[in-house]
Amino acid sequence: MIQTAVMGYGVVGSGVVEILTEHMESIAKRTGEEIGIKYILDIRDFPGSPFTEKFTKDFEQILNDDEVKVVAEVMGGVNPAYDFTKRCLLKGKSVVTSNKELVATKGAELLEIAKNNNVNYLFEASVGGGIPIIRPMSQCLAANDVIEIAGILNGTTNFILTKMIHDHMSFEDALKLAQDNGYAERNPAADVEGLDAGRKIAILASLAYGKHIYPDYVHTQGITNITLKDVAYANLWDGVIKLIGRVKRLDDGKLDISVEPMLIKNSSQLANIDDVFNGILVIGDSTGDVVFYGKGAGKLPTASAVVADMIDCVKHIETRRYIYWEDGSKDCVKPYEETEFAVYVRAETDDKDNALGIATELFRYVQEMSVSENDNEIAFTTGIMTVAEQEKAVKALNDKGITVKSKIRIADF
Amino acid sequence: MIQTAVMGYGVVGSGVVEILTEHMESIAKRTGEEIGIKYILDIRDFPGSPFTEKFTKDFEQILNDDEVKVVAEVMGGVNPAYDFTKRCLLKGKSVVTSNKELVATKGAELLEIAKNNNVNYLFEASVGGGIPIIRPMSQCLAANDVIEIAGILNGTTNFILTKMIHDHMSFEDALKLAQDNGYAERNPAADVEGLDAGRKIAILASLAYGKHIYPDYVHTQGITNITLKDVAYANLWDGVIKLIGRVKRLDDGKLDISVEPMLIKNSSQLANIDDVFNGILVIGDSTGDVVFYGKGAGKLPTASAVVADMIDCVKHIETRRYIYWEDGSKDCVKPYEETEFAVYVRAETDDKDNALGIATELFRYVQEMSVSENDNEIAFTTGIMTVAEQEKAVKALNDKGITVKSKIRIADF
Repeated sequence: MIQTAVMGYGVVGSGVVEILTEHMESIAKRTGEEIGIKYILDIRDFPGSPFTEKFTKDFEQILNDDEVKVVAEVMGGVNPAYDFTKRCLLKGKSVVTSNKELVATKGAELLEIAKNNNVNYLFEASVGGGIPIIRPMSQCLAANDVIEIAGILNGTTNFILTKMIHDHMSFEDALKLAQDNGYAERNPAADVEGLDAGRKIAILASLAYGKHIYPDYVHTQGITNITLKDVAYANLWDGVIKLIGRVKRLDDGKLDISVEPMLIKNSSQLANIDDVFNGILVIGDSTGDVVFYGKGAGKLPTASAVVADMIDCVKHIETRRYIYWEDGSKDCVKPYEETEFAVYVRAETDDKDNALGIATELFRYVQEMSVSENDNEIAFTTGIMTVAEQEKAVKALNDKGITVKSKIRIADF
Repeated sequence: MIQTAVMGYGVVGSGVVEILTEHMESIAKRTGEEIGIKYILDIRDFPGSPFTEKFTKDFEQILNDDEVKVVAEVMGGVNPAYDFTKRCLLKGKSVVTSNKELVATKGAELLEIAKNNNVNYLFEASVGGGIPIIRPMSQCLAANDVIEIAGILNGTTNFILTKMIHDHMSFEDALKLAQDNGYAERNPAADVEGLDAGRKIAILASLAYGKHIYPDYVHTQGITNITLKDVAYANLWDGVIKLIGRVKRLDDGKLDISVEPMLIKNSSQLANIDDVFNGILVIGDSTGDVVFYGKGAGKLPTASAVVADMIDCVKHIETRRYIYWEDGSKDCVKPYEETEFAVYVRAETDDKDNALGIATELFRYVQEMSVSENDNEIAFTTGIMTVAEQEKAVKALNDKGITVKSKIRIADF
């Protein structure tokens, strides 16, 4: 039997314990080893839990027990998870985690420590919950150059947008419904402002391109400004608005990486991914488009990904997995102002015909969109322009009294 | 440098050589080892090929060269691939393959030989071409009990059905178009009769349930009898007809496994998988629904999966991967006649009202479907019945002069 410890007995941690306990027999059969849980670390008390004798509040107990070979860090947050993870790796214990914040901010350092100590640091559960994505990306697509990754990476915002698109709920009402249903995380800002998706695309980009892309390199924009009017124009354009994390290597070798709302055509494989589901499109030079779809969060899906990593560590207790990236710098990333794409623009005006004429002059290309009931408003799509050019044109429109209310990127997939 | 051999220089084999050559540097970086191609085995001559000095017609040369550690078998067919694979494994060489026929018919035996010789037998490319599915199933879903697998596993038939559904082409015209476009394999029967999909679902079932399910255990039915009338009724029912390979473990522990055309609702995640694309739905008890989507065939997608397996062997040259199943027997599988599901039935009659009354009596439940222009025809859906019950009711209808033209399974996903 190989002994493990679970650090953190919250939603994911209790799911890990549940799966390891209930699937013990089948896991042992598949692994060739029984997996025991020797400790569960949590500062809280859980009176009446069937695992009473496993609980500890003392991290040092886990650290100094040489019998413990694999540790699941499912505490979340950077501190103290960072310190605990580092010390476990240095002690020769493999660590698996669902902690996207820690992987996104300290991944390169922790992977280096794992490598030097001949142990594993695995994080399948950090992106896409129960959807296998980290391992397929690192193994199955190993023979590909990854051209582009685009994903719906946050279930909460996808639920909100789905309610706006299909039920015509306002952003506020949809957010409230998400909170009532328990889909919003502790701090809804991390979801609706795009930070959560930003960490996830940073992890996927680091894995695909081999250099650590820190979340603060990623232009991140949430969905708080999306209105039902924008949703209606997108529908008119035969598409939907989704919060997309996306990265693509440009011809100059730099990465165009962002999290932002995008208009995507209904024919896109990501357009029909609704509610709390996640979907990730990976375009490889050999495979072409590959899409992974499933529940991106939730107790058991996420916990099952953590347990799969634990099983992998146990099976390869003497072997290092080759999930690795080097440290990176902001030079890897194209400044957002210099990135190029088409946009949808909506603006308020008293004189539509005149305003459209002005917009046609200021923007590279204009395709008018119209919703009959909005008489004091214009909406149009542009051709490909740099963000700097877009901003200049927006400013010029505003200066002429044509007030830009929305500018949303148009996806290229 | 680790030396390899490629056996078979057809579509996939030439793709493997192309990817290994063109991506040599990035693969070496990711793997920590250069991968060399020492031999290419083919009975044909390839004058002018840049790989002239690597070609050999003598398998023994590869077998007896201890420098060759990994062999890609991309010849297809059972003979001589079976003999060659067995002898390579016995000699301590890992073998990777895209040969679904060989894996489906000899997998358990070859996996056993690989295990006993401490080498790997990997076959990611055998199902879903460039879509990662074998490895995610065996690793990422390791913490799950797989409840059900349902997939569009054959691109040729999916292309034909897509043309029938969206362009109202007849089966014959769509097949011809598929052949003209090079989508049909050497023998179109293997595709349109469902044999290819049958091998693939047999492999997935073996992997998920740990026992070898041989293709002849799988009830296999192709799409040659699907008509545009059936496609129209499916559309009326708000669905489409797809060729689905499906396996589910029943309460009695037996597997309900088949390849057959099914009516699936448009809201299903598999309904919008069109053209030559494949999609595989895996339902795990912890993850819920996970879908993998991409190009299921083609030179580079399939070759990239073969190369990914070669990389995996090279990285873990001393380690066995735990992809394994035991031999199985027909007892694992529920006889098709005893399996239960709802069906759509179409029948010709001179007296529609009377015929519907009779159908209502004979079948467990009837929901009428109607297309106005078909006056001498009834169509309806039933409730869940065993296949034996369905057949009995069909025979009784026929006996009363109501000639059943189509009976198609209704999917439960």
